[in-house]
Amino acid sequence: MNAVQSTNPVISSDRVEGTTVYNPAGDKLGSIDHLVIDKRSGQVRYAVLEFGGFLGMGTDRYPLPWSVLNYDTSREGYVVPLDKARLEGAPRYAEEERPTYDDDYGRDVYDYYGARW
Amino acid sequence: MNAVQSTNPVISSDRVEGTTVYNPAGDKLGSIDHLVIDKRSGQVRYAVLEFGGFLGMGTDRYPLPWSVLNYDTSREGYVVPLDKARLEGAPRYAEEERPTYDDDYGRDVYDYYGARW
Repeated sequence: MNAVQSTNPVISSDRVEGTTVYNPAGDKLGSIDHLVIDKRSGQVRYAVLEFGGFLGMGTDRYPLPWSVLNYDTSREGYVVPLDKARLEGAPRYAEEERPTYDDDYGRDVYDYYGARW
Repeated sequence: MNAVQSTNPVISSDRVEGTTVYNPAGDKLGSIDHLVIDKRSGQVRYAVLEFGGFLGMGTDRYPLPWSVLNYDTSREGYVVPLDKARLEGAPRYAEEERPTYDDDYGRDVYDYYGARW
């Protein structure tokens, strides 16, 4: 059953949403809040990591390229290449904001993670 | 505001999920339950229409190619090219089932809607 699941080529959006995200050191960073999809092509542009939200303060959101999400079956969560120093400089926005999500923004985000825009 | 939204090139997965789906005659067919995403490429393979569920009976689910969803701002929902006759023959599965979602299945679904696999 696990072998079948791990080789399943597709995943449901509602299984991605809410999945925990860890850094390579095993620290829990947050969870995937939602996906951002290109309307025309149906391509997932970003998986948005929600992070923070202490003592009633708002959360920060980090748009991640889909390709940086690596599912770790032992942790039942995604591991992303974001150590603490890298997290500080990562593109983010406050929960109540909304990025433009235009090509310039996309290139900046993808460049940060070394992903191809 | 509406003009800005309608030209926005991206959409959030949680805005797609739950959106009502109509046929071209204006009949409500159901709503989008979830998206099925290719793990490797991040491409949305299907938007799954949930339909039925009367008197406690289970619902049927219809995987639709992303490209057949046309958002109608006046109805605040998607219009899909499924008249009643076409709906009867459309690929579907019961709620408790799960398709294989392999390439053969994908080609069948896409062919049914005249979409390119």
